[in-house]
Amino acid sequence: MNGAESLLETLGHNGIEVCFANPGTSEMHFVAALDRQPHVRGVLGLFEGVVTGAADGYSRMLDKPAATLLHLGPGAANGLSSLHNALRARASMVNIIGDHAGYHRGLDAPLTSDIEGALRPFSNWVRTSPSANSIAKDAADAIGYSLPGQISSLILPADTAWNTAEGYTLPPNAVAPTPASISPAEVDAAAARLREAGPRTAILLGGRALRSSQLEAAARIAEATGATLLAETFAPRTERGAGRPAVTKIPYPVEPSVELLKNFDALIFVDAKPPVAFFAYPDKPSVLTAPGTTFFTLSPIGADSQQALEALSEAVGSSKNRSSVAEAAGSSPAQPSLRAQLAPAPVPSGTITAAKLAAWLSGAIPENAIVVDESITTGRDFYAQTAGSQSHDYLGGTGGSIGWALPVGAGAAISSPERKVIVLESDGSGMYNPQSLWTCAREQLDIVVLIFANRKYQILRNEMSNVGVPDFGPKAESLLDIGDPAIDWVSLSQGMGVPATRVETIEELDRDFRAGMADSGPRLIEVFV
Amino acid sequence: MNGAESLLETLGHNGIEVCFANPGTSEMHFVAALDRQPHVRGVLGLFEGVVTGAADGYSRMLDKPAATLLHLGPGAANGLSSLHNALRARASMVNIIGDHAGYHRGLDAPLTSDIEGALRPFSNWVRTSPSANSIAKDAADAIGYSLPGQISSLILPADTAWNTAEGYTLPPNAVAPTPASISPAEVDAAAARLREAGPRTAILLGGRALRSSQLEAAARIAEATGATLLAETFAPRTERGAGRPAVTKIPYPVEPSVELLKNFDALIFVDAKPPVAFFAYPDKPSVLTAPGTTFFTLSPIGADSQQALEALSEAVGSSKNRSSVAEAAGSSPAQPSLRAQLAPAPVPSGTITAAKLAAWLSGAIPENAIVVDESITTGRDFYAQTAGSQSHDYLGGTGGSIGWALPVGAGAAISSPERKVIVLESDGSGMYNPQSLWTCAREQLDIVVLIFANRKYQILRNEMSNVGVPDFGPKAESLLDIGDPAIDWVSLSQGMGVPATRVETIEELDRDFRAGMADSGPRLIEVFV
Repeated sequence: MNGAESLLETLGHNGIEVCFANPGTSEMHFVAALDRQPHVRGVLGLFEGVVTGAADGYSRMLDKPAATLLHLGPGAANGLSSLHNALRARASMVNIIGDHAGYHRGLDAPLTSDIEGALRPFSNWVRTSPSANSIAKDAADAIGYSLPGQISSLILPADTAWNTAEGYTLPPNAVAPTPASISPAEVDAAAARLREAGPRTAILLGGRALRSSQLEAAARIAEATGATLLAETFAPRTERGAGRPAVTKIPYPVEPSVELLKNFDALIFVDAKPPVAFFAYPDKPSVLTAPGTTFFTLSPIGADSQQALEALSEAVGSSKNRSSVAEAAGSSPAQPSLRAQLAPAPVPSGTITAAKLAAWLSGAIPENAIVVDESITTGRDFYAQTAGSQSHDYLGGTGGSIGWALPVGAGAAISSPERKVIVLESDGSGMYNPQSLWTCAREQLDIVVLIFANRKYQILRNEMSNVGVPDFGPKAESLLDIGDPAIDWVSLSQGMGVPATRVETIEELDRDFRAGMADSGPRLIEVFV
Repeated sequence: MNGAESLLETLGHNGIEVCFANPGTSEMHFVAALDRQPHVRGVLGLFEGVVTGAADGYSRMLDKPAATLLHLGPGAANGLSSLHNALRARASMVNIIGDHAGYHRGLDAPLTSDIEGALRPFSNWVRTSPSANSIAKDAADAIGYSLPGQISSLILPADTAWNTAEGYTLPPNAVAPTPASISPAEVDAAAARLREAGPRTAILLGGRALRSSQLEAAARIAEATGATLLAETFAPRTERGAGRPAVTKIPYPVEPSVELLKNFDALIFVDAKPPVAFFAYPDKPSVLTAPGTTFFTLSPIGADSQQALEALSEAVGSSKNRSSVAEAAGSSPAQPSLRAQLAPAPVPSGTITAAKLAAWLSGAIPENAIVVDESITTGRDFYAQTAGSQSHDYLGGTGGSIGWALPVGAGAAISSPERKVIVLESDGSGMYNPQSLWTCAREQLDIVVLIFANRKYQILRNEMSNVGVPDFGPKAESLLDIGDPAIDWVSLSQGMGVPATRVETIEELDRDFRAGMADSGPRLIEVFV
């Protein structure tokens, strides 16, 4: 058995089921070894941003890592931008990056580069495996480290892959690191604060704390204490929709965030961090909370947020057991008033505007869909308007690296083949990883992509005035305009094997969207806005 | 005047004429400042690999830097893979990367990352400018450092851009670093060697030593001494074709390289390095020269290779002055026998094969064209077969990062609007930076792209056996196949505004290619092979 085979066996043994890949020569032994490993499936991306972005989407849905396979420094470099978002999504991921054989590296052949250096800013863990004897153990370490929502990058020199794994017998087990612990004192302090001034307190949920079971616990606390539930602006996955606890997202722009947060003089963090502005702007604050706001770190990043919320719930007297007692006694189950109500589906019509789109979308999302939203300026109201849609998972931007929704959508679809994926993408953003469409076609993913085509970098036009540029000339104008030539998304999509249509009215959009929902396989709709 | 304006003025003052850009919020002041700077043109790319790749192509043609504008860590990350090639091409480039305002960085907003760390493996020089007062000087340093063929990356925090540049009056001058010097002792040693055993000696030319004036000098030396001229396998730009000195490229595969190089027991390096295998392979050598080969470093990397070659020419008695004497005396000018002869244009026909393509191409290249070749397996014979084509510039792969030809071609076209650019691209490679086509349409570049569509990663199929994998199964097979679905390049190209056709015979290819040459503006031809 060679090193690559021992590596694949270790991946399969530890529950890795998918390897998103864009391989090259130095990875050929790994690729060949896939056929000897029944548990790991290879999924090809034609660009590395697709590969790491898909692994992010996969992990957001399943809370477990996929592997990726990347080709030396440049191949890894092409995947870094998606890794940045995955880091911020606290996704689990195990990157395998091929390198030259150890004895070849010092010769400075053209493809030689500092791969560890390139990966380090975008990974939580980086290691170069020195030999075929060590690669299985290194892979187990990489997997273990990734489990709580971290990015592991393991560099696999070609000779480490092709040499015999001497002494390898059984694949080693991955061991997750000890998670951050929850401080009973912090629970008590937060509980005391809630009892004292619940209505002036917000519970800020982020990361993996926006799943329905955590939201249920948080909603019980809020109901019992008058606290407000808030979500981080950039949240990897939120389980939401009608019947689930509603949570207000801190807005992206500075002013409304400050306006919202000044209602609270204490924040309780659950897998979340102190809210700050996305960008600095002259004459605007970077810190969004009011001066003197007290912070409680109920559940540190990576800790068991469910346990933390249950402990707090118990401390404030809103634990589930009490509800159960009420239930058993024949009364109706606790139904927090802040639970989202199914919104009556509005039926806008005619030419498409952002407001009509938001109203239409709120009624169009089918039960149990996965919604991936990078609609930027067009979709500013989508999140609020879909609070009462059929229950769904909502995947949002995390790190601000543009073009994430297409690959994350592809990875989410691979993770959950029984669910419908809806990608809300803008035309500027969609051009960073358009190759994702090819993987959607290749794998016949059940995914409907809406491209909102306003033919400009509209957000940058808005940002010009935010950063204090009152007006700008034609050269600046031309760098914010992507309408010359206009991108024909139907043509682009069909070119990569994904059937596509263009719509100019809500009726056309609704017709083509419903056809996509009724059908299986990928489909793209260019929405002219 | 704010920092961004002082920066732009410094760029313009020091001869920077083009800024390839994919901006974001933190770069808005730079973008706005473009309109106050008449000397710097902004060229938009929809993906950062296009931006840095185009700057590489631009520099290869003009031996001067373009600027790039990139958006924080993820924007820079998307440009790194093209930077890897540019480093290996020894291109000059000045990257400007926006960052958060200094006071904002410590807050760890979502887009925060270690930008310097990300850039360092792919730059020769990295600096974060601390303030609006320093940015002009930092920009001059960045430009100066880039001049001899290096990559400078200057990080521009947003407040450095928007604050007033106190004390700025005039733009500072860029000063190039002292170049590597040529050792007279090495010249003498190389000359002695050539006199002693010229026919067992090869002069290996790389980098900027493959321009016609250097080649002329090298050819005189070769003619006088019986030495052989060789070119590095990966050369950024070679001025070649009929009437120019011919130079044999060291082949990419290991065996023929070793076979070629065993004819020499000494190599004289001119802007070149000892030849090594591109990849390591089990049971194949990494060092391509025969054991005991003597190396002479006539012109170190970055030194004045013209001066070095003239010195050597003088030392071996083949200097131009002597030829001029002969010319003045009425004899014909020295015409080294190793000068390429205009090949009779062969006229293949019918269905397209790699051999027919090479023959066709040799007759199709028009005088003074720029040929950008990433045809990989389809084009293995292109270089040899076009030695006697009309004189042209030949831009080759340098760092092995795939997908470079489309952006480099775009940059070359921007650098040389009076010349025809021909991009020879393979379908696998073309999918890494396909967004380049949009910039070709936007700028109406005079560029004809041939996409050779074999619908697989053919090179990897070859490499499987090279690395010692005798056969592979269906999972491996699927990772080397890009034909399901087949990419429709005509649709893809038209989607980005570049007119396109598909051809299946040499006659159709010849017809559409000649139409492209006769016309102006971009065009793509999908060549089914």
